[in-house]
Amino acid sequence: MGLDMKQMVKQDQEVIKQHNKHLVLDVIRKHRPISRAEISKATKMSATSIGRIVNELTSEGLVKETALTSTGVGRKAIKLDIEPGGRYSIGVDIQKKRILLGVMDFSEKIVFTEQVAHTAIEAAPEATIALIAQTVQQCLDARGIPRSKVTGIGVGTPGVIDYARGIVLLSATLGWKNISLAAMLLQATGFRTVIDNDLKVKILGEYLFGSAKGSDKTVLINVGTGIGASLIINGEIFRGGSNSAGELGHTTLDPNGNLCECGKRGCLQTYIEESALLSEARRIKPITDIAQLFEAARAQEMWALEIMHRTSLYIGITINNIVCLYNPDTVIISGDLVENYGEILQLLQEHCKTVIWEPFRESLKVIASELEGQAIVMGAGVLALQLEIQH
Amino acid sequence: MGLDMKQMVKQDQEVIKQHNKHLVLDVIRKHRPISRAEISKATKMSATSIGRIVNELTSEGLVKETALTSTGVGRKAIKLDIEPGGRYSIGVDIQKKRILLGVMDFSEKIVFTEQVAHTAIEAAPEATIALIAQTVQQCLDARGIPRSKVTGIGVGTPGVIDYARGIVLLSATLGWKNISLAAMLLQATGFRTVIDNDLKVKILGEYLFGSAKGSDKTVLINVGTGIGASLIINGEIFRGGSNSAGELGHTTLDPNGNLCECGKRGCLQTYIEESALLSEARRIKPITDIAQLFEAARAQEMWALEIMHRTSLYIGITINNIVCLYNPDTVIISGDLVENYGEILQLLQEHCKTVIWEPFRESLKVIASELEGQAIVMGAGVLALQLEIQH
Repeated sequence: MGLDMKQMVKQDQEVIKQHNKHLVLDVIRKHRPISRAEISKATKMSATSIGRIVNELTSEGLVKETALTSTGVGRKAIKLDIEPGGRYSIGVDIQKKRILLGVMDFSEKIVFTEQVAHTAIEAAPEATIALIAQTVQQCLDARGIPRSKVTGIGVGTPGVIDYARGIVLLSATLGWKNISLAAMLLQATGFRTVIDNDLKVKILGEYLFGSAKGSDKTVLINVGTGIGASLIINGEIFRGGSNSAGELGHTTLDPNGNLCECGKRGCLQTYIEESALLSEARRIKPITDIAQLFEAARAQEMWALEIMHRTSLYIGITINNIVCLYNPDTVIISGDLVENYGEILQLLQEHCKTVIWEPFRESLKVIASELEGQAIVMGAGVLALQLEIQH
Repeated sequence: MGLDMKQMVKQDQEVIKQHNKHLVLDVIRKHRPISRAEISKATKMSATSIGRIVNELTSEGLVKETALTSTGVGRKAIKLDIEPGGRYSIGVDIQKKRILLGVMDFSEKIVFTEQVAHTAIEAAPEATIALIAQTVQQCLDARGIPRSKVTGIGVGTPGVIDYARGIVLLSATLGWKNISLAAMLLQATGFRTVIDNDLKVKILGEYLFGSAKGSDKTVLINVGTGIGASLIINGEIFRGGSNSAGELGHTTLDPNGNLCECGKRGCLQTYIEESALLSEARRIKPITDIAQLFEAARAQEMWALEIMHRTSLYIGITINNIVCLYNPDTVIISGDLVENYGEILQLLQEHCKTVIWEPFRESLKVIASELEGQAIVMGAGVLALQLEIQH
């Protein structure tokens, strides 16, 4: 809808002002330490404008002068840097049996983490939320961070998440259905909260800080007790309808294959999920734990090697199907399987030489998650830091 | 990069002016016929602004007053409409053995089409382009359309297309490699030209005018002499890396399946492409043409029914894999197969009751292309009409 001309121009000046401020902050973040003159050059804004904006940012405690000066010709100029302690956010990763919290500073570094053992499915959602609120306060106290410097909380959690409204629509892992997690955390902590699906937050972490840095189109495939995928296109998380793109587990791998709990035949998860590997293994040996399968494979037991061989082949075929449809440049393998049996990556890369369609084969990188345990906390922390920057 | 404050405000006023003009034109297009007062209400712009903008649009020949008046209380107001003859664009659909041209008027109606038999792969690209240029001129002459009213040419063509630079990177169907089609057509006709992959243009046509109207996330699957897919998300064509998302033919349907020309096993195209159906059929009967297979199926010959059964099952499984990854609300089936054997759609819808993952099953519509032969020309025509509106 349009606005009256004058209104629009006025509103627009405010938008431009905010835009320019963010632009300057962004240039400082990316090129720090940097002088006012260098910012002026990079942004093509006048020295006067830069001076005014930098003063604002400094008085808000977001930017600081450093002891460094520029080395070029002319008058030496003081270099500016982000003030890491200017703002903080809290990233939260809720998984089946634990909650991981991380405090992120304004330079996007995790400065403190805290892990709590907790099985959400055995507790009421209120109890889980109270535990998070309590741990948040402990983290802030431990580092002496005043509440006024906290921009908010970001949460990554398994399940179908209504990102815009902050609701966990369905999470089998946590046993949650229609839980207004963002609103409840806001009430329990007083901090604004953003939530998102854990794999979507994880790929954001890898894209910003980890193995997908510099990639244009990245897919993350998670293999462990569940199967899932997420995608970044041009720096944005791809959401699909109802934020539930990436339901990889029920893609059909073999039309005449295993029966799945969903009633279909040949779903991918019936071949590569942890429970599927366990039941395959138990046809041969009464193992009680997935670790025993990995041990057997490492001891070169043929049956175990064959399971790992087929698992990696099927992940490879799945990557091909994703590549043909989405055409990403990078595929990140994450989750319990690759974290506990890293050998799978090499098997997988070997298969990719034959199962990826040739035109896409050479340009595709298949790599392991770099941040592993911390990717979700980092992605969630960044989402929460942006709460400040947007306002 | 930022601009100086004053420059930005000035530039911005021009942007706002253009924005408001497009907004008014858009409101007229969508709600025509409509009065100035109604436009003012819909856009929340002042009567003065609307009056000025409408005058501009009228003097540019894009909008006209109608004989209709508003029926509400108060002074009767004249209703405005788009002037269909205000501008024209030309949509071009280049296929294996024919070129189809359509002239689209400013109300986005195709007012004239012309089909020319031509096998591009047997000619030099220059000859094909000369033929298009000649046919464009014939179409304009036939309707008495002055060149000054033509915004440009839009082309949809099979292959990997560099949309931004207007280059056909590779088209096996046309036998083209690195052909600067947009620049060559501009030179041959004097009209600005946009080009895109035919299935991407086709889904745009279906989204704007056909079976996908009102859908948020649509996938189009083309089955015929080749296999392909395209996707619209929130009104935008999804492009993937190098504009080549949707290479459905080489997704793996069966890890132990048919050997494909690409060197992999079990590619979808080895099961459902026209040539695959033909070779299946020839195991039983020495047919020479795909139409004979369809006849046999209509005559209830078991072998032919079984081929169509498996074909529709495999298309259904492919739809499931797409739905799990992308989560679209609508899947359009287009191409020679459904155009010549429409019965496939019902078979397919039957399979979808079992092969689509249950949470996505109910909300998914699987339908046939509505515009069939004209979808590409219409999508391409709209792309070319936008050339004017953007400038």
